[in-house]
Amino acid sequence: MTIAPLIENVSMNKSFGGWHKQYSHQSTTLNCAMRFAIYLPPHVSTGEKVPVLYWLSGLTCTDENFMQKAGALRMAAELGIAIVAPDTSPRGEEVANDDGYDLGQGAGFYVNATQAPWNRHFHMYDYVVNELPQIIEATFPVSDKRAISGHSMGGHGALTIAMLNPERYSSMSAFSPICNPVNAPWGKKAFSAYLGKDKATWLNHDASELMRQATVLVPAKVDQGLADDFLTEQLKPESLEVAAKASNYPLDLRLHDGYDHSYYFISAFIEEHLRFHAEHLSK
Amino acid sequence: MTIAPLIENVSMNKSFGGWHKQYSHQSTTLNCAMRFAIYLPPHVSTGEKVPVLYWLSGLTCTDENFMQKAGALRMAAELGIAIVAPDTSPRGEEVANDDGYDLGQGAGFYVNATQAPWNRHFHMYDYVVNELPQIIEATFPVSDKRAISGHSMGGHGALTIAMLNPERYSSMSAFSPICNPVNAPWGKKAFSAYLGKDKATWLNHDASELMRQATVLVPAKVDQGLADDFLTEQLKPESLEVAAKASNYPLDLRLHDGYDHSYYFISAFIEEHLRFHAEHLSK
Repeated sequence: MTIAPLIENVSMNKSFGGWHKQYSHQSTTLNCAMRFAIYLPPHVSTGEKVPVLYWLSGLTCTDENFMQKAGALRMAAELGIAIVAPDTSPRGEEVANDDGYDLGQGAGFYVNATQAPWNRHFHMYDYVVNELPQIIEATFPVSDKRAISGHSMGGHGALTIAMLNPERYSSMSAFSPICNPVNAPWGKKAFSAYLGKDKATWLNHDASELMRQATVLVPAKVDQGLADDFLTEQLKPESLEVAAKASNYPLDLRLHDGYDHSYYFISAFIEEHLRFHAEHLSK
Repeated sequence: MTIAPLIENVSMNKSFGGWHKQYSHQSTTLNCAMRFAIYLPPHVSTGEKVPVLYWLSGLTCTDENFMQKAGALRMAAELGIAIVAPDTSPRGEEVANDDGYDLGQGAGFYVNATQAPWNRHFHMYDYVVNELPQIIEATFPVSDKRAISGHSMGGHGALTIAMLNPERYSSMSAFSPICNPVNAPWGKKAFSAYLGKDKATWLNHDASELMRQATVLVPAKVDQGLADDFLTEQLKPESLEVAAKASNYPLDLRLHDGYDHSYYFISAFIEEHLRFHAEHLSK
């Protein structure tokens, strides 16, 4: 018998016939209180178990940004997909932090930190891969069909987590992901702090490296704006494209003239991502 | 010859093939610097002049809330409608303010204040009715076809401004509007401060009173959630319904079980409002 973990509802809003809800819980993986958001489509009111899209947000975000700004709930309601959005790091006064927006709280980078002081709380990889889905699947009327998507740092998280766990996700997608963090300032700073000096450990969390070496393939969709201020220095979609060619990976990478790094970009293409995931979740 | 007023672009984001842009300008009506947002649908790139929906936001909001959270740009792009979102009050260190969230900056209530200290800057009625459309129509590729909508305090603003200027707007709509401010705490506080003790002046900005006496009719659509915390004390849609019956006003008022006062409600029904305005703007 599975006992549902203790979680506390902190808000609920009806939207498109379904429900957006926020919950708080004590995370055993992160060793602190965490909040996540879930959107449950109207289908669940009839007892139907729906698949889940996990959304990983970017630097500085919380569980709220995607739910409020992406315009995704309309299609989730229509397609019958739940969406789960965790926070981007452990949080709290007792949790280590940094003055930079790109390290510490709000910047967990979806890895398990091995270095002090970060290794006490910063295990976002385990949280997203294991603890959070266990909670979701024990608590809500969802199936064990999962897809994963994200933006920027969360795009890095979605692609790397899916490729490291291809049996757990039917599809993966990203907007403006950090495609090659071992060669980008954001990635170098975060991986140095969280994983230490041994760059061999970094490669296990580099989407381009994982895609180049992949043998089990997860259908992948990536969209990138060409007016994105972070494109050249931080995001490097060309690295992912080269890697996909090397391993014949099923990557649909599209570059969009004029679009930037914001949710104005994400909202314009989120419908296509949800349809892509729905197609693979239903297989 | 009309000289376009000086306005300064402060941001731009491509979305759904069109552009979300923010501008700042010195308002002669409000006697301070103001910012507004505009969404221009893709149609304008071919030289087509598009009609404009003015969106008035609620208490504490700025020009950003609707553009980021309503999920409206998709349909604006499809229907070929520009959307303009002004701020909700004059702003700045030199502008009078109040400790409450429901008076002063962020709470202009879309009236022209006659009482000190508010009468120096708080002329949001004139700004929305006259100065802002003049700027928009002199600067952007838009027609002189206008519709108006808003939320909460901005729903009050949209309905009252349209009914006071029926020749200027082809349709009006609102989400969760303050329907009878002369009988609601928010309205009494704001109208006392801005308009003074003479309640006769208040009635000229009360949507229910204007609708009861209306002879020139603007097609009207109002949506209200029944799980809205402000429903009974502040919003009073029943007053508007009674008024519409008295004047045989073309009001489509719908009450929605389970929905609250948030943008999760607005986003679920904004498509229907945009289609409603598009139908009347095209006549």
